[in-house]
Amino acid sequence: MQRQVNHARMVCELADCLAKKGWLPATAGNLSVKVSENPLLFAITRSGADKQALTEQDVILVDEHQRVQGETSYRPSAETIVHVKLYEKFQCGSVLHVHTLYNNLVSQLYFERGSVRLSDHELLKALDHWEEGAFIEVPIVENYHNLEELGRAVEAAATPDVPGVLVRNHGIYVWGSTPEAAKRYLEAFEFLFQYHLMLRQYQSHV
Amino acid sequence: MQRQVNHARMVCELADCLAKKGWLPATAGNLSVKVSENPLLFAITRSGADKQALTEQDVILVDEHQRVQGETSYRPSAETIVHVKLYEKFQCGSVLHVHTLYNNLVSQLYFERGSVRLSDHELLKALDHWEEGAFIEVPIVENYHNLEELGRAVEAAATPDVPGVLVRNHGIYVWGSTPEAAKRYLEAFEFLFQYHLMLRQYQSHV
Amino acid sequence: MQRQVNHARMVCELADCLAKKGWLPATAGNLSVKVSENPLLFAITRSGADKQALTEQDVILVDEHQRVQGETSYRPSAETIVHVKLYEKFQCGSVLHVHTLYNNLVSQLYFERGSVRLSDHELLKALDHWEEGAFIEVPIVENYHNLEELGRAVEAAATPDVPGVLVRNHGIYVWGSTPEAAKRYLEAFEFLFQYHLMLRQYQSHV
Amino acid sequence: MQRQVNHARMVCELADCLAKKGWLPATAGNLSVKVSENPLLFAITRSGADKQALTEQDVILVDEHQRVQGETSYRPSAETIVHVKLYEKFQCGSVLHVHTLYNNLVSQLYFERGSVRLSDHELLKALDHWEEGAFIEVPIVENYHNLEELGRAVEAAATPDVPGVLVRNHGIYVWGSTPEAAKRYLEAFEFLFQYHLMLRQYQSHV
Repeated sequence: MQRQVNHARMVCELADCLAKKGWLPATAGNLSVKVSENPLLFAITRSGADKQALTEQDVILVDEHQRVQGETSYRPSAETIVHVKLYEKFQCGSVLHVHTLYNNLVSQLYFERGSVRLSDHELLKALDHWEEGAFIEVPIVENYHNLEELGRAVEAAATPDVPGVLVRNHGIYVWGSTPEAAKRYLEAFEFLFQYHLMLRQYQSHV
Repeated sequence: MQRQVNHARMVCELADCLAKKGWLPATAGNLSVKVSENPLLFAITRSGADKQALTEQDVILVDEHQRVQGETSYRPSAETIVHVKLYEKFQCGSVLHVHTLYNNLVSQLYFERGSVRLSDHELLKALDHWEEGAFIEVPIVENYHNLEELGRAVEAAATPDVPGVLVRNHGIYVWGSTPEAAKRYLEAFEFLFQYHLMLRQYQSHV
Repeated sequence: MQRQVNHARMVCELADCLAKKGWLPATAGNLSVKVSENPLLFAITRSGADKQALTEQDVILVDEHQRVQGETSYRPSAETIVHVKLYEKFQCGSVLHVHTLYNNLVSQLYFERGSVRLSDHELLKALDHWEEGAFIEVPIVENYHNLEELGRAVEAAATPDVPGVLVRNHGIYVWGSTPEAAKRYLEAFEFLFQYHLMLRQYQSHV
Repeated sequence: MQRQVNHARMVCELADCLAKKGWLPATAGNLSVKVSENPLLFAITRSGADKQALTEQDVILVDEHQRVQGETSYRPSAETIVHVKLYEKFQCGSVLHVHTLYNNLVSQLYFERGSVRLSDHELLKALDHWEEGAFIEVPIVENYHNLEELGRAVEAAATPDVPGVLVRNHGIYVWGSTPEAAKRYLEAFEFLFQYHLMLRQYQSHV
């Protein structure tokens, strides 16, 4: 099916771009692009694939019950449930989940607080906050061992205002209306997390 | 028009080079190359383009009133006004604006002081300061929400002696007589900002 | 021999991938892939090769006595003995040895303790620890000048539970059933080492 | 001349490799490969070239008096004198000079001491120190504004035992019998400088 192939290609291009930044180490992370809304179908990376060398065969079409569509010997990512929850809540077009040092550091250092506040920075515009004096709170949830529980926690914490949720010592889930929007949000979050921590560090030893 | 195509190509090459360094995250930043002086025409990145995959169609020709020349459905960068101000003040050939962690850190840590002093370093030669004992002060202006106000602030702070102005928690504007010169200045500034802060950090815990 | 050529290719692909991350500086590091179990034969990088530009001619076939198979003027890596010990102990399919700043820092900072504990992180799953509350201890051995002694120390410290051993101020040895598994383990270790130290640093100046 | 072309190519390959590491920012740095010993002729990067996009036309053949051989409108690097001094003292085959954050930090932090001591590390072997308990002292000289004076200072500080000299807030000069050896030494120095400072930092906040 022409349509499925194209979405697999889009997932591979996202993987290639994010892997080059070092955001998909050790086969971790999972990426998806929506194929249809009713019924919900989306193309997602298979479990265990090295995203630094992803091919279209590593991308699987699944439905809202995480059932694999078409012939494949691969299983979808174990965290497919979180993607389902986000597609259902926001009718978004793409969900990206990556592990970086800085999103992990923030997720642990601000876990007790429940969220990290990002403010006073130009890149908040890239997160669709163009108002003067903009600030956001990015929610942080526990890294539940049970993936259904993790999915519910991410879904409950996610709001339309901030297109991302951090999972403690795990990574970030980001969603957008298109793959391009999701990627832009992700890059903005990662810049702001790193900037937030580096500024805190430099201010501590003036 | 042959001429326009070439300038668009030059902007794409600058974008490609600077994006590979990670200096153009989340569609942020804007780059331009002058096409003619009288009347002022320059090729500039469109608003919202991913500079990590810029094409010539993402580069737009504009005049001194920020009016788009030729047929396109795209808008020029929202910060085109700052480019106009710099072209008018210095008759330069290229203006580059990027967001990096270190130019942001410096812009915040030294904002109250109004500028950051860079001294005692070989790379000041790359900023055209060949004199013995050279030092420069890079001005830092507020990140005004109103872009006309931002343009006036950058214009007012900019001097012929130092080819760059920092905007607080936003990034740096750099200009040069050619794209090559502007890129060399930018790389020198970024090295010196990072070196300045790292040296400060290492000296603090000897 | 078709078979040998393919294993040499696999070693080159590993080298290329790991060198791009900066993990094989200054001709350091050595990588091998098993060709046969009985008798033990494996393809390993030659001594002194620049792994940033490795070719199949830089990969040598050796047996359990470190004897070179086939015609070549090159010598196998000086640390081939460590690979032999790991192949013999675990019947694994690949052994990777790289030098990074963070595996070196960990190896020195926790040397007196004898191991570094990694816990409370999603990426432990990439090291095959899927249990809730998982933690591991990565052993650290002295960097013995005598390579036979080094081989025995790595062999003695290595356990089936944790696929890696650190050598003080030298690097890490990682093994896996396949080159893909060994690479996944290595990337997980490196992420976790860096995260462990960065978290410690950020927690120290809250 | 066939011979000259090949040496220019070798310089371009060195530039490409080192520029990709970020070690040649803002047109800084200069690289050379010896063409003949008697009389001394070497191929060196021209002044002002962007080493991130070096072509063979940017490489110039010069003699021991820094006189340009052949037709070119370019000038050789302003620091050619330092290369001459090192070729004359060591009869080496290549000289590399790069600017990195860490070689600059070390050059400033240990300037008063006159040298930085590197010890207790495997990578000293890559600097040809295979003895047990190996250590080296890398000399640091003032960044003299007069380049003849700088050349004499580097020459005076350079010893056969350690193939590099640091210049304060400027960079490192490294030499080797071949371009491959010089590149290996350079990569070993840079790893060891960064490791030395990072270890110092991490040990300070245990």
